[in-house]
Amino acid sequence: MTQLITRHETNARMSRIVVHGGVAYLAGVIPTDRAGDIKAQTKEVLARIDELLATIGSNKNKLLTAQIWLKDITNDFQGMNEVWDSWVPVSEAPTRATCQALLNTPEVLVEIIVTAAL
Amino acid sequence: MTQLITRHETNARMSRIVVHGGVAYLAGVIPTDRAGDIKAQTKEVLARIDELLATIGSNKNKLLTAQIWLKDITNDFQGMNEVWDSWVPVSEAPTRATCQALLNTPEVLVEIIVTAAL
Amino acid sequence: MTQLITRHETNARMSRIVVHGGVAYLAGVIPTDRAGDIKAQTKEVLARIDELLATIGSNKNKLLTAQIWLKDITNDFQGMNEVWDSWVPVSEAPTRATCQALLNTPEVLVEIIVTAAL
Repeated sequence: MTQLITRHETNARMSRIVVHGGVAYLAGVIPTDRAGDIKAQTKEVLARIDELLATIGSNKNKLLTAQIWLKDITNDFQGMNEVWDSWVPVSEAPTRATCQALLNTPEVLVEIIVTAAL
Repeated sequence: MTQLITRHETNARMSRIVVHGGVAYLAGVIPTDRAGDIKAQTKEVLARIDELLATIGSNKNKLLTAQIWLKDITNDFQGMNEVWDSWVPVSEAPTRATCQALLNTPEVLVEIIVTAAL
Repeated sequence: MTQLITRHETNARMSRIVVHGGVAYLAGVIPTDRAGDIKAQTKEVLARIDELLATIGSNKNKLLTAQIWLKDITNDFQGMNEVWDSWVPVSEAPTRATCQALLNTPEVLVEIIVTAAL
């Protein structure tokens, strides 16, 4: 069974989206504005995920699963969840797992990796 | 190629299971009884995964891949593996990757995220 | 929709590769020679991924997504990226996410988990 692979926003290191077999794999998304608190950074990350999904004709109602990495889970879990919970579509939440993980850029508080259906 | 998405045990934050294209994505599973040691907590997590898979007609013989997050990999890797190894079906083990990761609840020693076929 | 699951290099704990629905899930790959620096270890890991993909008739041009775990992201992110960037095929990079994560063996600096199409 060979199925087409399509890649989006591809550079020498990674693609932002790879689509295969009706599933879209997104790269980990981090905020570009790192001055904000966890709520601001989470809002920007989720808005960017909305944008990426829109480029392939998908949307947040088709999320399958998510991993959330927080720089400081003790202090930022609640703030991230407030933004996340209000963003997730009613009755259509993905599966999820969240842990603390140090990321490459110290000012980045959150990285989110999602997989979605087309 | 549009395929049905079905969600199970869905609340405002996440679903416990999302099924799409013959693949079941499970949310990260943590123990509810956090008084036990790594063996007790791993046993409870794996029993809960068995339960979740049963609700969609799957089982541990159809696991595709797993990520295991341990709060203390230095002290708990061996104990987790003892329970894991005895749980995994002969000749039908999933792929796996394990790392140390701080989780939201300090008493939780292990979280396991699996993907399974229907 | 029931699809065949095939497993490769399976032992009592895990399989090195599980294939289902045209997708190959690889176990997290770590280096066997832990004396080297991040570049040497990353090279060995990627060469091992090449080998594993070859056993199922796939290759690095068909990578869908990757997670990279570094023991020391502050010191090793750049070195890992130099090796990674030169290994990734032009125009065919997978999606990617990288974080710091303590692994079971202290001498292991990098673990890479990939998913590929057949």
